[in-house]
Amino acid sequence: MNDRNPVIALLGRRIRLAVIGGGPGSFIGPIHRMAARLDDRYDIVAGVLSSDPQRSVAAGLAMGLAPDRCHPDLATLLAAETQRPDGIDAVAIMTPNDGHFPAAMAALEHGFDVICDKPMTNTLAEAQTLLEKVQASGRVFCLTHNYSGYPMVRQARTMVADGQLGEIRLVQVEYVQGGRAKPGPGRVAWKADPARGGPSLVMGDIGTHAHQLLRFISGLEVGEVAAELGCVVPERSAHDFAGVLLRMAGGARGSFWVTQAAAGVENGLRIRVSGSRGSLEWQQEHPQVLDFKPLDAPAQRLTPRGPGALPLALRGTRVAAGHPEGFPEAFANLYSDAAEAIAARRAGQRPDPLALHFPNAHDGWMGMRFVDAVIRSAQAGGAWTAA
Amino acid sequence: MNDRNPVIALLGRRIRLAVIGGGPGSFIGPIHRMAARLDDRYDIVAGVLSSDPQRSVAAGLAMGLAPDRCHPDLATLLAAETQRPDGIDAVAIMTPNDGHFPAAMAALEHGFDVICDKPMTNTLAEAQTLLEKVQASGRVFCLTHNYSGYPMVRQARTMVADGQLGEIRLVQVEYVQGGRAKPGPGRVAWKADPARGGPSLVMGDIGTHAHQLLRFISGLEVGEVAAELGCVVPERSAHDFAGVLLRMAGGARGSFWVTQAAAGVENGLRIRVSGSRGSLEWQQEHPQVLDFKPLDAPAQRLTPRGPGALPLALRGTRVAAGHPEGFPEAFANLYSDAAEAIAARRAGQRPDPLALHFPNAHDGWMGMRFVDAVIRSAQAGGAWTAA
Amino acid sequence: MNDRNPVIALLGRRIRLAVIGGGPGSFIGPIHRMAARLDDRYDIVAGVLSSDPQRSVAAGLAMGLAPDRCHPDLATLLAAETQRPDGIDAVAIMTPNDGHFPAAMAALEHGFDVICDKPMTNTLAEAQTLLEKVQASGRVFCLTHNYSGYPMVRQARTMVADGQLGEIRLVQVEYVQGGRAKPGPGRVAWKADPARGGPSLVMGDIGTHAHQLLRFISGLEVGEVAAELGCVVPERSAHDFAGVLLRMAGGARGSFWVTQAAAGVENGLRIRVSGSRGSLEWQQEHPQVLDFKPLDAPAQRLTPRGPGALPLALRGTRVAAGHPEGFPEAFANLYSDAAEAIAARRAGQRPDPLALHFPNAHDGWMGMRFVDAVIRSAQAGGAWTAA
Amino acid sequence: MNDRNPVIALLGRRIRLAVIGGGPGSFIGPIHRMAARLDDRYDIVAGVLSSDPQRSVAAGLAMGLAPDRCHPDLATLLAAETQRPDGIDAVAIMTPNDGHFPAAMAALEHGFDVICDKPMTNTLAEAQTLLEKVQASGRVFCLTHNYSGYPMVRQARTMVADGQLGEIRLVQVEYVQGGRAKPGPGRVAWKADPARGGPSLVMGDIGTHAHQLLRFISGLEVGEVAAELGCVVPERSAHDFAGVLLRMAGGARGSFWVTQAAAGVENGLRIRVSGSRGSLEWQQEHPQVLDFKPLDAPAQRLTPRGPGALPLALRGTRVAAGHPEGFPEAFANLYSDAAEAIAARRAGQRPDPLALHFPNAHDGWMGMRFVDAVIRSAQAGGAWTAA
Repeated sequence: MNDRNPVIALLGRRIRLAVIGGGPGSFIGPIHRMAARLDDRYDIVAGVLSSDPQRSVAAGLAMGLAPDRCHPDLATLLAAETQRPDGIDAVAIMTPNDGHFPAAMAALEHGFDVICDKPMTNTLAEAQTLLEKVQASGRVFCLTHNYSGYPMVRQARTMVADGQLGEIRLVQVEYVQGGRAKPGPGRVAWKADPARGGPSLVMGDIGTHAHQLLRFISGLEVGEVAAELGCVVPERSAHDFAGVLLRMAGGARGSFWVTQAAAGVENGLRIRVSGSRGSLEWQQEHPQVLDFKPLDAPAQRLTPRGPGALPLALRGTRVAAGHPEGFPEAFANLYSDAAEAIAARRAGQRPDPLALHFPNAHDGWMGMRFVDAVIRSAQAGGAWTAA
Repeated sequence: MNDRNPVIALLGRRIRLAVIGGGPGSFIGPIHRMAARLDDRYDIVAGVLSSDPQRSVAAGLAMGLAPDRCHPDLATLLAAETQRPDGIDAVAIMTPNDGHFPAAMAALEHGFDVICDKPMTNTLAEAQTLLEKVQASGRVFCLTHNYSGYPMVRQARTMVADGQLGEIRLVQVEYVQGGRAKPGPGRVAWKADPARGGPSLVMGDIGTHAHQLLRFISGLEVGEVAAELGCVVPERSAHDFAGVLLRMAGGARGSFWVTQAAAGVENGLRIRVSGSRGSLEWQQEHPQVLDFKPLDAPAQRLTPRGPGALPLALRGTRVAAGHPEGFPEAFANLYSDAAEAIAARRAGQRPDPLALHFPNAHDGWMGMRFVDAVIRSAQAGGAWTAA
Repeated sequence: MNDRNPVIALLGRRIRLAVIGGGPGSFIGPIHRMAARLDDRYDIVAGVLSSDPQRSVAAGLAMGLAPDRCHPDLATLLAAETQRPDGIDAVAIMTPNDGHFPAAMAALEHGFDVICDKPMTNTLAEAQTLLEKVQASGRVFCLTHNYSGYPMVRQARTMVADGQLGEIRLVQVEYVQGGRAKPGPGRVAWKADPARGGPSLVMGDIGTHAHQLLRFISGLEVGEVAAELGCVVPERSAHDFAGVLLRMAGGARGSFWVTQAAAGVENGLRIRVSGSRGSLEWQQEHPQVLDFKPLDAPAQRLTPRGPGALPLALRGTRVAAGHPEGFPEAFANLYSDAAEAIAARRAGQRPDPLALHFPNAHDGWMGMRFVDAVIRSAQAGGAWTAA
Repeated sequence: MNDRNPVIALLGRRIRLAVIGGGPGSFIGPIHRMAARLDDRYDIVAGVLSSDPQRSVAAGLAMGLAPDRCHPDLATLLAAETQRPDGIDAVAIMTPNDGHFPAAMAALEHGFDVICDKPMTNTLAEAQTLLEKVQASGRVFCLTHNYSGYPMVRQARTMVADGQLGEIRLVQVEYVQGGRAKPGPGRVAWKADPARGGPSLVMGDIGTHAHQLLRFISGLEVGEVAAELGCVVPERSAHDFAGVLLRMAGGARGSFWVTQAAAGVENGLRIRVSGSRGSLEWQQEHPQVLDFKPLDAPAQRLTPRGPGALPLALRGTRVAAGHPEGFPEAFANLYSDAAEAIAARRAGQRPDPLALHFPNAHDGWMGMRFVDAVIRSAQAGGAWTAA
């Protein structure tokens, strides 16, 4: 990623962004805002930081927003910003899960581009509705499955697409955390409430990430699932693990394992994809390394700026080889690509095709289809179920 | 492991061992013999090295066996050695899989102790018969699920048994190899023949190892399985992958994934066990490290002779901290423990309880029960099936 | 690092920053600007982006600076910004090395706080002069030895200071790169020119980083050095390696090895510090891990948000445990701490003592003393020389 | 390494070996004996296990030696074994350091081949005398610098010799242990006594290993050294660290750092060799991995049986890819190669050239020259001294 700012180059200014949610106490809010700032393609100019109007305004002021752009609620923000000559171009939604759907629908209704946290919605029906809305609107919709933003994940995607692995035969993804290893509902109350956190906590929280990573790298869709869902930690009702056997469209087979109940584990997202010509292995806790194990040649350790790095990986790196980038930069890669797409749309131009690898509404809908299939399979005693 | 030779201390001599199978071209034969030699508790004095009588004798001579103890077949060996005043004490069986059952039965019939390669048998019925035979015989039966012999695997077993992980909630095992990633039946013809290699190649070859490792560390039995078996590599009929969801007795849940079709992967056996108080992680390719991640304390990297090493781990190490031991030493740990058990039996003494952690006929029978349940579940479309 | 913005809290606005240098083609310029943006404590409002006035203005506009704040040269910037009611508070200097000293002196002369890239100066005499100027000015001076900003480096510093390692006995630092492994002067022409890049390229480029890291973690100063300097790659005159034996004040002994000629190596900065009670090991390419090896207890792998993370590490992390941060975030930690110091100074308050661990002019002077001693020792055939 | 026993093939029997030293309480004795047994090329038939005649005989009996071959002292052993028709072919010397020279000289005098632990002698003069004796005798002399036996070290040697790294420019070796981190003379009393342990404990104990590893891989000799020696742990006189700057013959430059005082570190032997075309990195605690970082191609992780493994590596492996071997197997590789050389000598044949990479008396003499130069340089205040 060179030093050129393609948004300023196209528009003569940065994209004006409003943030919806992510106020005091939020984990993900600060990350969204860092991601927006990192590559200098956005000005965060307005916001609704909380569902409580007073807290919303106070948090906006503390962030340095202008007083007249610290809005008490979404409807007010959308109305006011639509009126301003210097009003926003886009919104970034980082509310609790049940807020994604109505906020995204309303923002699209007002003509804004949308960046939205995952899971896209809490139900498959909502996902379908939102997908159709996005398609009809012509607006940019970026779903922040941020692991897709890591350079070596993008390297892996390109290597598979280029045929370096041959025909894909086996996929294996695990996402193991320990954040819910202690008894009880957990630190964030709304997550354990199905009405707000969705029908399967572990699937919405991290299962959709694992699913998207698998699709993003392998280029394959899940065909059928045989699943179990449950909770292993006492004093809990929300799912804290899911195990799924996968039949991928095209014949590959796979394993999927996600849990938030593995005491002491931090953020163990790990994937292996094997084809007729070799295997790729990546783990999120050391994201700068992609292990490529060809069938009959020495194993390679690929790095973001090292020899063999491909354009889709290179455009997501900012620093020289051996200088690690991390989770915030991966997140920022989605924001920065979305910015290019938004700027191009506004300028009436076609964006660089390499900018269009961020997850979108179709990906979000596929995620909800997968969650739905996993739930149905588990309810049916693990019966093979189309995804 | 100190320098004392407990077998010579008890018997005034080494155990006299005959090897059955493992002749020219065998992968596992040389390993068995190294394992027998390493700690100087056995003299390999006789053998049947091949099913071909002439090749058997030639191979025995090439190994340095006395000419009159290079036998053409098992029956001759058992008869001859029974007659000799300096005849063998025990046999070690490393034939193709279908030879394990008859050889073990015959050796027990003649009163010999038995060391036997895995899988114990090719069918559950044979396993049941052999288990009963072993129990009736009072002889030592050591099944060489060698991964149980690694010091850090034994450390893990003890830590779980001591309650350092609390109540076990999640188990996860994968055994991923690339040895059968190329189309066709593979290098070793008998393995792909169900009559010789067993009903499910991948399950017999490596699935039983993964299952035993899981039981050995977690101390838990598999209750029910939901499984898929198949082959993803063209021009093949024998199974090259198995995916299994696990319900452990007692309520823990788990994931099991084994394949020999992951191109470029060497010998990726990896396990994670999580309890209410922390998680353990171990991988065979770096066997000297056991990662212990307690719930609320810094992660630990335990090593075989490092601080915190427990007696069951220590007795399986030969060299000072930081001097790696490997696969042959793990294999030898089973042989050396079996030697202590055999010597104690012959001396009419009770062996050191720490010597009795080698897999035995009960473990072999449990393995065949698991394979059988996996096959039945897969045939039933992944239906939950008691193991 | 929580979501609170201490600069806005103190000043009601962000710090207004001018950037000096770092325009098109610069590696370090974009990193400085990212570091300034990441935590939202600065507005970059003015700049001199190039020593060529026209390129300077064009680059400022491309970055989105207001036209009247894209200055042609430093003198103009300092004069103009001093006049404005909304003029800058501070400058960030990222010119070639020979520009650091005059730019810093001039900025201090005009009363601005200074953030400056390393090495602080090209000569010890300049360093001495600049140090005195800073001390007399009362202004904040932050030297971007960015490796000090990594959370686990800060964790290490605190652990040593808290006595967790006991008395320090041995230190070992290496900084190995491959960027100058090919014959010839290298990609960046000014670096190989002693008048611009300094008297010893490898020492100025990376040796000062290694020296600062060693001091920062160990809390010890170098007492005497025995050194060799040279170049091993053909067609080159600038130093591409330095080896130094260290006698630390207080009696510890150490090894120092830096090179930019190790073909294929990316950015291998690695340190080990050993005391009477244990050792610490850290390597920059996996910066999220700090290995602590206590004398008689299991080795620990510490992580930025994991159990045992100390306040100085925690305040330098933005994301939950297991979500890696990298080089840009470490760089940003210096900027954000400097921002707190600058804001506190302007508000007439004392900053949080935890904000004051960024390298300063004294550290820069110590670095130049070390470089000078290494050069003198090497010239004297490796004779022990006071640093 | 295939299953063929080249010693039996040549001689019709194993080599008959006597062990000198290594009795109760010895660390290295059991390793020598394992190494001799592992590949079945030796029968250990006689021994002097202790300098105390009674303990010597008792220890021999406990090992299972025949009573008439448990000798009270070396002179008796040499005399008796020379008389027997089935007398020994070779001796393996594993006494305290000061015993190496007289035992080796006496064994050679009696015409036996010799395997000898390191350091070869305690003084350079002895080393010179012994080297001349070996050369005059025509006997095999194998010095157990066992790290040369690791397959990936041998792979590295071959890659350098084959020119895969181009011209060697930089070498870097460190050997860091924590075994003497506690105050006092240490567990093994004779080591700290210069008359028995040699003039520099750390150099004799591990410095010679590091030196040999460096020569073995790089193919280069040390030309000049600038060194410091000392002890950093209280209540001690024997050296516990050494730092050396290296000028290699041919122009490469290097760093050498060894210590036994790094609390908590296990056995950290690590080497990097860089040439014009790439770098190699290896560390003893994960000996199965050799990292090859070519100048302009992706980094490779080479393994003992993986793609790219070269003949010298392959002949030192026993198990399939991904099945780790360790320190005992590396040690055994020296024994097994020496066995081939001994058998060939006795059979009047030329051994396989690949068998002749074990360290020999010339290497031992070079090691003592290096130790001597390091001591002299340190005494001269780090002056550059020819090695």
